[in-house]
Amino acid sequence: MSTQPAPARAVVIYSGGMDSFTVLHQALAEGYDVYPVSFHYGQRHAKELECARAVCESLKLKHQVIDLRSITPLIDNSALTGDIEVPQGDYAPDNLATTVVPNRNMIMLSLAVGYAVNIEAGICFYGAHGGDHVIYPDCRPEFVEAMNSVSQIANLQPVKIHAPFLLDDKASILRRGLDLGLDYSQTWTCYQGEAKACGQCSACRERLGAFAACHITDPIAYQA
Amino acid sequence: MSTQPAPARAVVIYSGGMDSFTVLHQALAEGYDVYPVSFHYGQRHAKELECARAVCESLKLKHQVIDLRSITPLIDNSALTGDIEVPQGDYAPDNLATTVVPNRNMIMLSLAVGYAVNIEAGICFYGAHGGDHVIYPDCRPEFVEAMNSVSQIANLQPVKIHAPFLLDDKASILRRGLDLGLDYSQTWTCYQGEAKACGQCSACRERLGAFAACHITDPIAYQA
Repeated sequence: MSTQPAPARAVVIYSGGMDSFTVLHQALAEGYDVYPVSFHYGQRHAKELECARAVCESLKLKHQVIDLRSITPLIDNSALTGDIEVPQGDYAPDNLATTVVPNRNMIMLSLAVGYAVNIEAGICFYGAHGGDHVIYPDCRPEFVEAMNSVSQIANLQPVKIHAPFLLDDKASILRRGLDLGLDYSQTWTCYQGEAKACGQCSACRERLGAFAACHITDPIAYQA
Repeated sequence: MSTQPAPARAVVIYSGGMDSFTVLHQALAEGYDVYPVSFHYGQRHAKELECARAVCESLKLKHQVIDLRSITPLIDNSALTGDIEVPQGDYAPDNLATTVVPNRNMIMLSLAVGYAVNIEAGICFYGAHGGDHVIYPDCRPEFVEAMNSVSQIANLQPVKIHAPFLLDDKASILRRGLDLGLDYSQTWTCYQGEAKACGQCSACRERLGAFAACHITDPIAYQA
């Protein structure tokens, strides 16, 4: 009778949105012992975090929720963290410039890598994807590659940065999640922090577009 | 009569210790409009931060002090942040393994880069130096180079990572500071958080070694 080795640990940056929800389940499907971490950085859409909490509880995963609001004075020049209004309309560069949080992914990844070193996890998953490349430089393949390089040498223990959906669009990610049997009513996307999703902001529009492309109805509630 | 252009902005990671104190003054000497940022990450030696505050006030610099204690659950496996005892004795790898804070410099640099983007500064100074290379991977030239690479592409605005004393030992940094006329009674180094420096911890020993190499007496008070 042989003993199974313990599964390898993985840190997953998990916002509660549909992309990172799919990444979380992808890491589980690959057999990792998953340690999800969520960051509250003063975003208006903190409702994402409630979704993340509920999902981790139901999966019995140890969930770290890290309050990063103390860093807001450093990165307050964004509609997602500061006083600027969230833009309405399509997911397009000009429209979304104000939703760029300065250096957000490098900040979250560097914390996730610190956590990985702390718990001896060799890999960090995060949900960068093809649809974000034009607008968010820190979702591009060259950024992921450069972060992976620095994470090999920043500590005595190397950590791999892995963005499994880096080249996929949002509809492909959704399709993958539906294949995994996931329930997207457990996710939140809207940039506004209301009880129901607005359906108008760029994030809602992009989400609705992905569901339309997969020919299914989004299970969450939208304002009329 | 010509108008002087506004000096370029620089972010300086400034702990309050003697290395970053020298880096801060180096950046000022190079003519930068300096934005110092200090991080409180749960280190025992928070007295450093009091020194940093006093120095920035006397220099009339806008000083950001960012409380990062909320991230401690991610990086608690260190004597500087957790419950492990601070080691006594020389500044040597075996002795200092417990003083490594997981991924500390990547975390601080990614926040500093976010701040640089926010205020349109093109450069971040930090105080990595030669004496730390053996013990702290995130003080090595290859780490600085890799962080610089990723900081060029992580945001629409590139940010340079600059460690002016990367190849110098602590005595050389002190010598540079003395040339600049700096008063090192305005700095703090001891890893213990007592009223007077202990003189016994690895950080104190390294500091005292630098003063001895420069043939001058350290102006701060030590326990008998």
